[in-house]
Amino acid sequence: MTKHDPNPSRLAMVPFISVDHMMRIVNEAGVAQTIAAIADRIEADFLRWETFDKTPRVPSHSEEGVIELMPTSDGEFYGFKYVNGHPANMARGFQTVNAFGVLARVDNGYPVMFSEMTILTALRTAAMSIVAARHLAPKDARVMAVIGNGAQCEFQSLGFHHCLGIEEVRLWDIDPKATAKAVRNLEGTGLTVTACSSAEEAITGAQIVTTCTADKKQATILTDNMVGAGVHLNAIGGDSPGKTELHRDILMRSDIFVEYPPQTWIEGEIQQLAPEHPITELWRVIAGQVPGRTSRDQITLFDSVGFATEDFSALRHIHAEAMRTGHYVELDLLADPDDPRDLFGMVARAAGQ
Amino acid sequence: MTKHDPNPSRLAMVPFISVDHMMRIVNEAGVAQTIAAIADRIEADFLRWETFDKTPRVPSHSEEGVIELMPTSDGEFYGFKYVNGHPANMARGFQTVNAFGVLARVDNGYPVMFSEMTILTALRTAAMSIVAARHLAPKDARVMAVIGNGAQCEFQSLGFHHCLGIEEVRLWDIDPKATAKAVRNLEGTGLTVTACSSAEEAITGAQIVTTCTADKKQATILTDNMVGAGVHLNAIGGDSPGKTELHRDILMRSDIFVEYPPQTWIEGEIQQLAPEHPITELWRVIAGQVPGRTSRDQITLFDSVGFATEDFSALRHIHAEAMRTGHYVELDLLADPDDPRDLFGMVARAAGQ
Repeated sequence: MTKHDPNPSRLAMVPFISVDHMMRIVNEAGVAQTIAAIADRIEADFLRWETFDKTPRVPSHSEEGVIELMPTSDGEFYGFKYVNGHPANMARGFQTVNAFGVLARVDNGYPVMFSEMTILTALRTAAMSIVAARHLAPKDARVMAVIGNGAQCEFQSLGFHHCLGIEEVRLWDIDPKATAKAVRNLEGTGLTVTACSSAEEAITGAQIVTTCTADKKQATILTDNMVGAGVHLNAIGGDSPGKTELHRDILMRSDIFVEYPPQTWIEGEIQQLAPEHPITELWRVIAGQVPGRTSRDQITLFDSVGFATEDFSALRHIHAEAMRTGHYVELDLLADPDDPRDLFGMVARAAGQ
Repeated sequence: MTKHDPNPSRLAMVPFISVDHMMRIVNEAGVAQTIAAIADRIEADFLRWETFDKTPRVPSHSEEGVIELMPTSDGEFYGFKYVNGHPANMARGFQTVNAFGVLARVDNGYPVMFSEMTILTALRTAAMSIVAARHLAPKDARVMAVIGNGAQCEFQSLGFHHCLGIEEVRLWDIDPKATAKAVRNLEGTGLTVTACSSAEEAITGAQIVTTCTADKKQATILTDNMVGAGVHLNAIGGDSPGKTELHRDILMRSDIFVEYPPQTWIEGEIQQLAPEHPITELWRVIAGQVPGRTSRDQITLFDSVGFATEDFSALRHIHAEAMRTGHYVELDLLADPDDPRDLFGMVARAAGQ
C-alpha cells in the first residue's frame, strides 16, 4: 500500500470516523448517554418533519439479501446511509448488517464526514424506540420484555433503562446463547435482567414488549393471546418485504404508529394489513397534532423499520462529537485542482512528481 | 485527531482509493490508456445490459444544485456513486462536481472498495463517449470540435485521439482562459490543437462535435444551421432537468441514441422532445440488435447523461488496478465483533482498553 500524499489542500480532506473512533466517541460519553443524545436529536428532527426531503430507501435485492441507500436532507445538510441486510451472514462469520454513511453540505455538495454506521445504526435504532415509547408507552412502565437477544438487545435495554426508567428486562431468544450473552453484557448496569425460557414467560408483567429478531421471513414471534391490554409494542425486527414478527390479529387490536408511511407499508408489520387500515405518523404525535396513548387499556404498536431522517440525526450528533473530541482522521477524498476547470492538469502534473 | 486502532480484524478493513492513489493508478498506466481500458469495460458491460439492476439516479435538489446517488448491481457486485452538481461552486473556488463511490459484494453486502470518483467520473465520461462514437461516428473521422473547454475537454480530446484516431481538436469556450488552459494541457500529446474564436469556427470541418459546457440552464450552444450532414454529435453537458445544450431543431434532424431512457428523458437533450419521439438505446446498437450509423449523411446524436453502470464499470477497473498496484490504504470501516451478535460487547470492551 502506498502512503497518502501528505499535502493535498484543505478542501480535499474529509473527516473519517472509523469503527475505533466511533467506539471512543461513544464510550467517552457513555453508551446510554449517547443513545439519549441521539434520541433528543431524533425528536427535534421529527418536530420539523416537513423540512426534510423524504424518500423510501432505495433497495437492491438479491437472493442472499439486500443492499440499501437511505438519503435525506433538511436543506442545510444532506445525509445518506449504505446498509446491507444478509440473514445468512451470521452463520458464515459475517455481520448480518453493515452500515456506513456520509453527511454533506447542501449549499456546495461537499461531504463533511464519512463514518462507520454499523454501531451508529444500533444506537439510533434504540434511540428511535425511546422517542416512540416516550409518547406511546404507559408512563409507569418499569418492566420490558425483549424478544430476540441479538445485536439490538442491549442497546434497547440500556437505553430504556436510562431514558424511561425501565428497571427490569425479561429476555428471550430461540438461542439461549444469545440470551446468555445479553445477560453478561448487562451485568452491573443497574438493570434487573431475567433470562426467560419462552416468549410467554418473557412478556409476563411487562408493560413494554420489544421484538427484535432477525429472521428474513414471515415469523410469528408473538401471537394474539400473548398480548394483554395496556401494553406498548416496540416492533423492530419486521423491516423488509416479507419479514414480519407479529401475528396479524395483534395488529388488528393495536393503535399503530409509524415513521414514514410510504416505506412502512413496504417493510413494516403493516404489510399484513389492507392499505386503508388506519395508521398514525409518529411525527404528528410528537408535534401534538394527534394523541399518542389515550387510555390505560390501549395497545400501542410502534411499527419501526428505521428511516433516513433518524440516521441523519445520528450523523449530526456524531459529527458534532467528532469535531469536539478530535476522534477522526482526514481522508484525501476530493480532487481540488488550483483551477477548478483544470482537473486534467492536476492529474497530468502529478505524473511528474 | 486520534490514531486508528492498529489491530482490527481483516473483515473490518475496506480498501480506500484517495485522490492521490487515483492519480498514481491513472498516471502509471497513462491517462489515455486508462480511458481506453474503462471504455472496454463499459462496452463489455453494455453487452450484458439486461444483467444489471437499473434505476434512474436518486436526486436531492436544492436552490444551489443537486446531490445524487447512482446505484446499480450486476448480481455479483454492487456499486454506487455519490455525485453533486453545483454550478455556482466554481466562482467560489469549489469544484462544480465532486464524486466518490463504493464497490461491494452482493453475496454478503460487504464493501470491497471506497474510492474518490471525481477524477474517475471524468475518465469514464470520456470512455462512454468513445464507446458511443465507435458505433455512431463516421469511421474516417479525424477532426473533433470540443465546445466547452472545462474539466471534460482534455479527457475527451486525448481519449478520442488514442482510441478513435482523432488527429485534430478544435476548441471553443465562452471563456478564452479555459481554451488556453486546454491548449497548454494538450501540448505534446500528438494532437493538433486549434483554439477557435467561435463555435461556428470550431465545428468547421469537424466530423465529431463534442459539447461539454457546464451551465445549469437551457442553453443553445449549437443552433440548427451550424450542424452539417454526416456529423456525430457527442452531447455531454445537457445532463439535468432544465439543462440542455442543443437547439431542438438539431434533435429533430438527428438519430438519437441514449444510455438508459427513463433517466435520459428526465435529464438529457430529449427533455425538449415529445415522449413518443423515437430514440434508440445504445446497448442495442452495441449488441447488434439495431443499426448505429447507417449512412454518410446521417446526423447521429449521443445524448449522454451518465449512467450508473458506467461508474460501475469504472469502479471495477480501478478496483483491479488498485489491487494490482497496491495504490490504496485500508480503512477500519466495518464493525467486526468476535460474535456477530455481540456488537454491544465489542463497544463495551473497547471502553476498558
